[in-house]
Amino acid sequence: MELGLVGLGKMGGNMRERIRRAGHTVIGFDRNPDLADVHSLEELVGRLEGPRVVWVMVPAGAATQSTIDELGELLQPGDVVVDGGNSRWTDDEKHAEELAAKGIGFVDCGVSGGVWGLKNGYALMYGGDKENVAKVQPIFDALKPEGDFGSVHAGKVGAGHFAKMVHNGIEYAMMQAYAEGWELLEAVDSVTDVREVFRSWQEGTVIRSWLLDLAVNALDDDEHLDKLRGFAQDSGEGRWTVEAAIDNAVPLPAITASLFARFASRQDDSPQMKMIAALRNQFGGHAVESKSEH
Amino acid sequence: MELGLVGLGKMGGNMRERIRRAGHTVIGFDRNPDLADVHSLEELVGRLEGPRVVWVMVPAGAATQSTIDELGELLQPGDVVVDGGNSRWTDDEKHAEELAAKGIGFVDCGVSGGVWGLKNGYALMYGGDKENVAKVQPIFDALKPEGDFGSVHAGKVGAGHFAKMVHNGIEYAMMQAYAEGWELLEAVDSVTDVREVFRSWQEGTVIRSWLLDLAVNALDDDEHLDKLRGFAQDSGEGRWTVEAAIDNAVPLPAITASLFARFASRQDDSPQMKMIAALRNQFGGHAVESKSEH
Amino acid sequence: MELGLVGLGKMGGNMRERIRRAGHTVIGFDRNPDLADVHSLEELVGRLEGPRVVWVMVPAGAATQSTIDELGELLQPGDVVVDGGNSRWTDDEKHAEELAAKGIGFVDCGVSGGVWGLKNGYALMYGGDKENVAKVQPIFDALKPEGDFGSVHAGKVGAGHFAKMVHNGIEYAMMQAYAEGWELLEAVDSVTDVREVFRSWQEGTVIRSWLLDLAVNALDDDEHLDKLRGFAQDSGEGRWTVEAAIDNAVPLPAITASLFARFASRQDDSPQMKMIAALRNQFGGHAVESKSEH
Amino acid sequence: MELGLVGLGKMGGNMRERIRRAGHTVIGFDRNPDLADVHSLEELVGRLEGPRVVWVMVPAGAATQSTIDELGELLQPGDVVVDGGNSRWTDDEKHAEELAAKGIGFVDCGVSGGVWGLKNGYALMYGGDKENVAKVQPIFDALKPEGDFGSVHAGKVGAGHFAKMVHNGIEYAMMQAYAEGWELLEAVDSVTDVREVFRSWQEGTVIRSWLLDLAVNALDDDEHLDKLRGFAQDSGEGRWTVEAAIDNAVPLPAITASLFARFASRQDDSPQMKMIAALRNQFGGHAVESKSEH
Repeated sequence: MELGLVGLGKMGGNMRERIRRAGHTVIGFDRNPDLADVHSLEELVGRLEGPRVVWVMVPAGAATQSTIDELGELLQPGDVVVDGGNSRWTDDEKHAEELAAKGIGFVDCGVSGGVWGLKNGYALMYGGDKENVAKVQPIFDALKPEGDFGSVHAGKVGAGHFAKMVHNGIEYAMMQAYAEGWELLEAVDSVTDVREVFRSWQEGTVIRSWLLDLAVNALDDDEHLDKLRGFAQDSGEGRWTVEAAIDNAVPLPAITASLFARFASRQDDSPQMKMIAALRNQFGGHAVESKSEH
Repeated sequence: MELGLVGLGKMGGNMRERIRRAGHTVIGFDRNPDLADVHSLEELVGRLEGPRVVWVMVPAGAATQSTIDELGELLQPGDVVVDGGNSRWTDDEKHAEELAAKGIGFVDCGVSGGVWGLKNGYALMYGGDKENVAKVQPIFDALKPEGDFGSVHAGKVGAGHFAKMVHNGIEYAMMQAYAEGWELLEAVDSVTDVREVFRSWQEGTVIRSWLLDLAVNALDDDEHLDKLRGFAQDSGEGRWTVEAAIDNAVPLPAITASLFARFASRQDDSPQMKMIAALRNQFGGHAVESKSEH
Repeated sequence: MELGLVGLGKMGGNMRERIRRAGHTVIGFDRNPDLADVHSLEELVGRLEGPRVVWVMVPAGAATQSTIDELGELLQPGDVVVDGGNSRWTDDEKHAEELAAKGIGFVDCGVSGGVWGLKNGYALMYGGDKENVAKVQPIFDALKPEGDFGSVHAGKVGAGHFAKMVHNGIEYAMMQAYAEGWELLEAVDSVTDVREVFRSWQEGTVIRSWLLDLAVNALDDDEHLDKLRGFAQDSGEGRWTVEAAIDNAVPLPAITASLFARFASRQDDSPQMKMIAALRNQFGGHAVESKSEH
Repeated sequence: MELGLVGLGKMGGNMRERIRRAGHTVIGFDRNPDLADVHSLEELVGRLEGPRVVWVMVPAGAATQSTIDELGELLQPGDVVVDGGNSRWTDDEKHAEELAAKGIGFVDCGVSGGVWGLKNGYALMYGGDKENVAKVQPIFDALKPEGDFGSVHAGKVGAGHFAKMVHNGIEYAMMQAYAEGWELLEAVDSVTDVREVFRSWQEGTVIRSWLLDLAVNALDDDEHLDKLRGFAQDSGEGRWTVEAAIDNAVPLPAITASLFARFASRQDDSPQMKMIAALRNQFGGHAVESKSEH
């Protein structure tokens, strides 16, 4: 089938390649003309035969919104827009309504896979009406990993991004789990080869996983991670996961602890711990470390 | 080689079988005569040629202590005792010293694998002197999974149980990660098929793992886990992990949150939340639920 | 001075009384005619001489929005609206802009004090332009506790509700602190009189506070809180505090733990702990408690 | 009455002064002869008439153990030793048994008050048999604050230190509560005067407390705590509180979060966050910050 693909960055570019390898026609647009197959969204839409499917793979927020707005002007009733970016699930219903007013269908799709996706396939979680999903299905089938798993019609509009968001929340806590364990093993004298302990866990244990394999790769590059700083960004989806939990009164202690650990990792100094130091000094005359001493 | 194996319960019995399948001779003792190959520890030791290796696979604490004490009386210099039970790593150094005073070697070994170990092999983490480990190595090789991974000489005496303990701590937080994500997905209306979302994650995602496979198995048995109560024991090793972290001033927020969630799951009512309710009532006249209303 | 007061429930009614005792004129409106001094907002506005100050003390959300909308139609340039309800700080800027378009001033005010406020005064945190705050100042002075403290001009529009929200977040974690300590003391045999321990802490300790006094009152009513269930609502402001922290990448582990403990307290059974139980059963054959056994 | 007091440091010295002001005789011993009234423990015991009461106020652990051992040699049946230091409650039972074997009584006493105790009195929590407590009571009455509260016979031997330990655990979480709130207020633009917000909370609020008063003092010295580093020691009692909770399967999320925040504050770089950064780099090609860039 034919697909219009908007956004040909690291993710979008590899996805175009994987879809083409599966025998589909992809017409790609990007603001960077070196990456693009066409010069404009208008040309992209003109090159596709209806009913059209246009996959949007641009940064969440303003870029996605303006792309969907523009597509709403260009597309015809019966066409379908897929938002495959990292949009917040709360945006999906709005986008679906805006497009539905013009007879255009909408499907949201969370995509996991990163730099490994081109080779191994992308995990896909999508949401929307059956009818609209059916129009995109050959593309989902091209992108997903081989085998029985890797893609799911998770539910209504928004369910795809919601499921992907929860996936990322779980990812935060799993990474934190390995990280805490690694720090504890490194902290004691009796365990003399932490890297080999991690390596051994790759078979026969309860905690074997792809993330564990990656941890071993990382330790093979840099046994004690001496080259890195303990500094971690967060992508937004971890924050949204906690916010969704709060909206639904669901306690999420491990995932939230993982998010907060990232926040703290980015602080040069901790304001709240200054207050702790100040209070200790007030009531106990405990020594504090002043800036100048350090 | 020959091995003496003390403790032939669910774990020990399967381990005897796997070691025998690898061509070794195992002489097993258990207090339950239906399971045992010999009638006493004395007979077991008498049946082995020196230098002997005796693997202790009995409950941690008093049972392990008394078995090691008795073996200390029966064995000869140059023999080796392996503690493969769930002993706390702090016990290992004591046991090693007690036996070393008699010229007997000691190796501690954490064993993971549960009911899957007979078929797939047991993950092994062991600690001790090279010389002692070498005497046990053929047994380790028989027990471990096929492939390159699954066993490790983690360090000095105690390192095996320490590594296994940390493995379990990581396991607690990974399970909690999936559990939190599952609860959140179940809590929203838009995601209509949570089980299929979990199933799809088994390929192409960052969070694919053996535990995820098990979660899918569990959901296939009981889609919404309606048959279960939200009640979880803890084995001791999660507690020790947090205590080791405290000893080493290592922050362990996700693992500790997972442990506390289990504690809370076992309370019929939460005393601390009674105090919260009482305080809210005192300052705000907030309605409280009394026992009788419920 | 004269004040229009909209909303005469438990809080508003007592505030009217305290303001009147200070010698001011209060004209109160409530949808419940038994409580009201006038029959309509229109009548209330008509009874006040300009420049008018109207204090809105109704539930946050729709009720506050519609009251402010209606006042926007009735008031004149130079008048001031005070929102003293539990509005989210993000609403304040919107309300200020809507009213400013008509020349009407806006001040947001967080109010603490509960059932004790009439007698002891209400703690007030307000935000807005100096000019608008000045018009309300006599009312703030009437409502606040005697003494040097108890009211603050916290900053710009929204700062009052933000400060009150953070106050409540701190309150959550302080209550949780006492509650955790109480549960731990009750859990051990050696401490035979937990209530008297709490009572003793009221002088000379680092943790003496008004909340501690309330805890002692509660324990005097019901020494082991046997009459209560461990069940706690949350007012919304705890949730907003965590959301504000996430927006600002501020780690808030103790306050968030306190919020999650309340969420968990309201669950008859914990879905996430069902998943933990299911996973334990899958890998270890651990016994699970089924519904029917309980 | 007469008291022997061992340990005349910052705490012990002030306590001697407060007891003397109440009209009692104190004979103090310290290894520092400039502080001591006598030259040896032996002289101290010799100067007291039986039944003697000797209060030990030296560092927990080895110093306390050796002092109690020595007193066990010097004292007579019917005498009483009080351990007023920061001993772990688990030591108390051991000390009681050792002394009981010689007919000597033992009382453990947790003391709170810090640098304010001389003036305001010390909060006291003590454990032991009624008979032994009665022999010390006049000293307790001299040390405690005026008023109805401030001292308690908490229970059996060990209950005093246990209650003091829990006091400190609660203190950790209360301090963390204020610290988190302060950091959040400082993080937003709309709140322009955080110090005044804290000051205002000292009356009429739910969160007023002595710790809040100290926070205001600290902010008056250094409005944004610019002079301090966010670095906090922990005294041991916070760790013991969490360990006691684990022993009793009591979930303690807020207190534990407060302890872990202190651990993290003392790390120059976070090993666990290095692992998070390494994993993010492995699966997503996310930029990491290397040491050299910083």
